[in-house]
Amino acid sequence: MMQQAAIGLGVHIRLLAEAPDVSAAQVIPDHFVGDYTDIDDLRRAVEGASVVTFDHEHVPPEHLRTLQAEGHIPRPGPGALIHAQDKITLRTKLDELGVPSPRWTVVETVADVVAFGLPCVLKAPRGGYDGKGVWIVRSEAEVIDALAADAVLAEELVDFRRELSAQVARRPSGETVTYPVVESRQENGVCKEVIAPAPDLAADLVAEAKQIAVGVAEALDVSGMLAVELFETSDGRLLVNEFAMRPHNTGHWTIDGATTSQFENHLRGVLDLPLGPSTPTAAWSVMYNVLGGAVDDLESQVADVLAAVPEAHVHLYGKSVKPGRKVGHLTVTGDDLEDVTARARQAGSLLQDGL
Amino acid sequence: MMQQAAIGLGVHIRLLAEAPDVSAAQVIPDHFVGDYTDIDDLRRAVEGASVVTFDHEHVPPEHLRTLQAEGHIPRPGPGALIHAQDKITLRTKLDELGVPSPRWTVVETVADVVAFGLPCVLKAPRGGYDGKGVWIVRSEAEVIDALAADAVLAEELVDFRRELSAQVARRPSGETVTYPVVESRQENGVCKEVIAPAPDLAADLVAEAKQIAVGVAEALDVSGMLAVELFETSDGRLLVNEFAMRPHNTGHWTIDGATTSQFENHLRGVLDLPLGPSTPTAAWSVMYNVLGGAVDDLESQVADVLAAVPEAHVHLYGKSVKPGRKVGHLTVTGDDLEDVTARARQAGSLLQDGL
Repeated sequence: MMQQAAIGLGVHIRLLAEAPDVSAAQVIPDHFVGDYTDIDDLRRAVEGASVVTFDHEHVPPEHLRTLQAEGHIPRPGPGALIHAQDKITLRTKLDELGVPSPRWTVVETVADVVAFGLPCVLKAPRGGYDGKGVWIVRSEAEVIDALAADAVLAEELVDFRRELSAQVARRPSGETVTYPVVESRQENGVCKEVIAPAPDLAADLVAEAKQIAVGVAEALDVSGMLAVELFETSDGRLLVNEFAMRPHNTGHWTIDGATTSQFENHLRGVLDLPLGPSTPTAAWSVMYNVLGGAVDDLESQVADVLAAVPEAHVHLYGKSVKPGRKVGHLTVTGDDLEDVTARARQAGSLLQDGL
Repeated sequence: MMQQAAIGLGVHIRLLAEAPDVSAAQVIPDHFVGDYTDIDDLRRAVEGASVVTFDHEHVPPEHLRTLQAEGHIPRPGPGALIHAQDKITLRTKLDELGVPSPRWTVVETVADVVAFGLPCVLKAPRGGYDGKGVWIVRSEAEVIDALAADAVLAEELVDFRRELSAQVARRPSGETVTYPVVESRQENGVCKEVIAPAPDLAADLVAEAKQIAVGVAEALDVSGMLAVELFETSDGRLLVNEFAMRPHNTGHWTIDGATTSQFENHLRGVLDLPLGPSTPTAAWSVMYNVLGGAVDDLESQVADVLAAVPEAHVHLYGKSVKPGRKVGHLTVTGDDLEDVTARARQAGSLLQDGL
């Protein structure tokens, strides 16, 4: 999806691909297969590039610092990116910035967790996403398992009404553009639907969410897109859950529902180009994540999907279908939220499960 | 631009490129360099493909018939495409269909042209575009030059108010979707701006233009996009100028201004997938063609363009800048035509000429 935006702007992308058949390699001619944890592969990828950017957070920060020392320009830089990589660094920084967050502590032993209070959430320090590396623990037995599986951080089990995401694009020179705050609906720890904007979100919470996103982007000197995932608590407060410093699943609706997509503004941000407006092009956008389901051959299913919902914006990722894997998404836009949601679900369910 | 649409739909494109550095080859990994007039290069390009389509009209019809005989599926087929290739075949067919057209005749000699009436327009049989292969002749001397340069067709010099374009997408199974009729403004025979929809176009002419486009698409069994270029005469009639059976310059606004772009509907049409709605996402879209001008390095100019007009949708083609060559376009959308036009011109002029 970054390549779609790059084509318009005339931006040449060189891709370091994990495997010959990954999604991005299917659509970016200038790619080679390598290991993003290998400094020599990274050096080969960045040679001659104006800037270096990412579609995930897993490039080791020490390698990014090496590239910086060699004159390359990673955006976001390692000093910012570490907050999307390491959960303890993130939590420490959020407290320092006074950003509202779940109560948390570092834990080593079962006693630490019990002292913190059960039930709670235990997290691995790094690499968790889509519910991986996250354990909701209610008993000492569960704590023992989670600690054995690398949990190092305990967080308050937040009593939340829903999950929100606040995205902001930022240039190194300081300009920021916030996107509408959206609601992200999860199933089994995986984002299933995004509604833009978040329905019935109080204006003061919209303003607070945007202010948090901009404040964090500026404090951490983020370049490109920042997504701040938030809980809206049952008593109407916002608490920051996590960050992503790249185009994020909760912003895929912007491709078809906003004047400037998150992918274009990520490129504009990291290239220090003036940012584009985030204005929605329709009253409502609903994005449906297509997970690996009953349909194996998604391409052959597209005809049925488009026959049922011709206005659906289908995005397939060229990935083989595995249960629960994100293999595509689609977005429907319109004036009536109920109708837009129903049509997005109809199209999404047809694409994912054939029914 | 077709590749941007293909990425979303999960459509794999194999490209027969005229040269290693052409625009499409820069963004389509599966390409090889070959000659589209060479049947063996064509055979190599189409091997294993579900369908074969085009971004220009110049593939020889006899080769397309050969490919058809060998089991391949060119869309549009040679029987349709010939009307976008050969101007005498086109004019003959339009008369047969009763489609309003400029008066015309085949000419061989100066006497033929004089008998037809001066001034008039002389045209080469094939390959003309952007004013090439078209001569407005007012004297016998000019007629002699044009005939020597391959003119074979004389057409009435139409007294027109403006040029319009009516686009329709069609599937082989028959479904059609018409786009808003647009105004195309020319400079020196080259399309410079497109305004969507055509301002102040009478409702009966809108309906007639769409009816012509749909009628032609059905009569010729067109698959994918058809653009019908029309004159609106000074006395308020429509006359058909030419056809294009592919995504067309007058439809580039649809990428940023319509629910389904012409590129996506071309792919959906030729793949016989249900078509997407052509509904505009804004009241007005103005597309500005960037021709080779004072700016050599377009990429470096983008920062100034986006600083002045952040909402401009910039599309660069990755072509080297030559005087008058179409090297990109941009689109601005909005509610107020005067404002949208001014901002598109401001951005376009900055990109093209640096001022």
